[in-house]
Amino acid sequence: MTTVGPVTTLDELTTPALIVDASALDHNIATMSAALPGARLRPHVKATKSTALAKRQRDAGHTNFTCATVREVEVMAAAGLGDDLLLANEVMDARRLGAVAASGARVTIAIDSAETLKAAVDGGVRECVIDVNVGLPRCGIAPERAGALADDARAAGLSVRGVMGYEGHVVGNPDRAARVAQCETAMELLLRAHKDVGGDLVSAGGTGTYDINTWANEIQAGSYSLMDTAYDKLELPFKQALFVLSTVISIGDGFAVCDAGLKSLGMDHGNPSLSPEVGEVWFCSDEHITYGPAATPTLGDRVRVTPAHVDPTVAYHETMWVVEGDTIVDEMPVDMRGW
Amino acid sequence: MTTVGPVTTLDELTTPALIVDASALDHNIATMSAALPGARLRPHVKATKSTALAKRQRDAGHTNFTCATVREVEVMAAAGLGDDLLLANEVMDARRLGAVAASGARVTIAIDSAETLKAAVDGGVRECVIDVNVGLPRCGIAPERAGALADDARAAGLSVRGVMGYEGHVVGNPDRAARVAQCETAMELLLRAHKDVGGDLVSAGGTGTYDINTWANEIQAGSYSLMDTAYDKLELPFKQALFVLSTVISIGDGFAVCDAGLKSLGMDHGNPSLSPEVGEVWFCSDEHITYGPAATPTLGDRVRVTPAHVDPTVAYHETMWVVEGDTIVDEMPVDMRGW
Repeated sequence: MTTVGPVTTLDELTTPALIVDASALDHNIATMSAALPGARLRPHVKATKSTALAKRQRDAGHTNFTCATVREVEVMAAAGLGDDLLLANEVMDARRLGAVAASGARVTIAIDSAETLKAAVDGGVRECVIDVNVGLPRCGIAPERAGALADDARAAGLSVRGVMGYEGHVVGNPDRAARVAQCETAMELLLRAHKDVGGDLVSAGGTGTYDINTWANEIQAGSYSLMDTAYDKLELPFKQALFVLSTVISIGDGFAVCDAGLKSLGMDHGNPSLSPEVGEVWFCSDEHITYGPAATPTLGDRVRVTPAHVDPTVAYHETMWVVEGDTIVDEMPVDMRGW
Repeated sequence: MTTVGPVTTLDELTTPALIVDASALDHNIATMSAALPGARLRPHVKATKSTALAKRQRDAGHTNFTCATVREVEVMAAAGLGDDLLLANEVMDARRLGAVAASGARVTIAIDSAETLKAAVDGGVRECVIDVNVGLPRCGIAPERAGALADDARAAGLSVRGVMGYEGHVVGNPDRAARVAQCETAMELLLRAHKDVGGDLVSAGGTGTYDINTWANEIQAGSYSLMDTAYDKLELPFKQALFVLSTVISIGDGFAVCDAGLKSLGMDHGNPSLSPEVGEVWFCSDEHITYGPAATPTLGDRVRVTPAHVDPTVAYHETMWVVEGDTIVDEMPVDMRGW
């Protein structure tokens, strides 16, 4: 229903459409794999929500993945990517995860309380990590209580594989020296907990600390493959690969309108951006961007919009089209949406 | 895949989940139908994206609908709601719309340029309205040029049904007297264009001007059925009907975390809100809201989150669950997502 006939070039694509620059994607995956080979990286699928993209990461040597939702675990396992799936999140109902584990995938769940431990046991999940609060006020148990929770988990029959702790309050700091110092402080908390918890895994990190966090033994980076403008200031070696392709549908007096908007762009980081040669965004409506064009546009022009935040942008779309110039070379369905 | 077993109560629902208060929805639809009966209202489906909800509006007497995307037109027609569908938006490729019209639905398209006129003709669409810029810098031709475009459309074989013009810059003004004055100014432009264009339709308006815009002969309101907190200040007789149900999954020192976030909430109007008895939102992550609880929460508590903007919230979800208290009484699939 999306298109009329088979689509091979950008001109034929129904807009708005997610497009991924093939060479930037390849560069990003290769660069990360060189820095963090094999099991040193546990790619997070939450930013990309695509098993096709995860398969590219597996082909680059990474067989263990991080998920944020039960749906992601289910779909990854069903796609044959279930060698070692970590749900790096708490749930109060783990029955669907237990079903995935029973089907033969390896499923490990994060717990940070007696209640999430009970949910794991009741749901039939057999492996866990202790989620530790390393400074971000979100999930995670206080480090000094991690060992006792691990003891309880083992007493309840769970295998405790180690600890995780996400330094999300650190990853975006543009001052690299400060980022290093903050990361060390956070990871001291995680290592203190690990001493009490035991197990092989010390799982942490993200794209912003991928080459800084040497305390964790696996890094949960995900955004690096498509990249996020929020990381621009960090001078990382990854390239912006994701854009929303849109079409100029109306031209007014001093402004133009293209057909991407609030339902095709994650807006929590603010407005998307256009390249300076195209113009400057004025405002977004549900299905429109009104912008001030830098040069006179033509109706039907295709405009590449750079979203301000990749994760909630991808979650609006059914597919990502991989492009080389104006040619579509691959399609990556966004098949892990929802919960 | 979403749930384990059949779901009949809120307790069994996988979260995050969109829930709609049945009595508020019924009240909103009935209140609007009393004010704007039958063809005086052309409900806009863009906020709700659900043919099940549109059928409730049809059952209340409204057979003509407004759409923002080609996908919405296609799905409405396929659901038997194709009596009179207006795409209140410009497209540069109308072939899929022509196919819908050929299948027997009535499809009318907005045009505001020679190019969108040509796209309509090339795509096989036979009816149009002239979209007029009434002050919002988005789509629409200048009023003084509308008549000439209508002449060109008729010369090209299109039936011109009239004019439309959306006073989107007016609908949110909390000062009712100012809203009335601004609406009149905008509609003077539309009526001036209508004089030159002819045809039966003068289509305009939204939830914020539904009882003010007496110049248009049909109103394109959509948000009224689920309501939007952005309209709170306007003292409209519609009630908030849409919430995101979430589960408390972690409790920290002075904060709690529930499992709704940036991928289940439209964020362009800012953070969502909680009822004062629940607490105050600190910040949102992809799959989490961290909030300061007003009273000590319990893990597993269900929390109703009020999204700051309905339209882009609904577009993240697969279904809306209609509830009476804690009982699920109906399911409305969000079946018009995408493009």
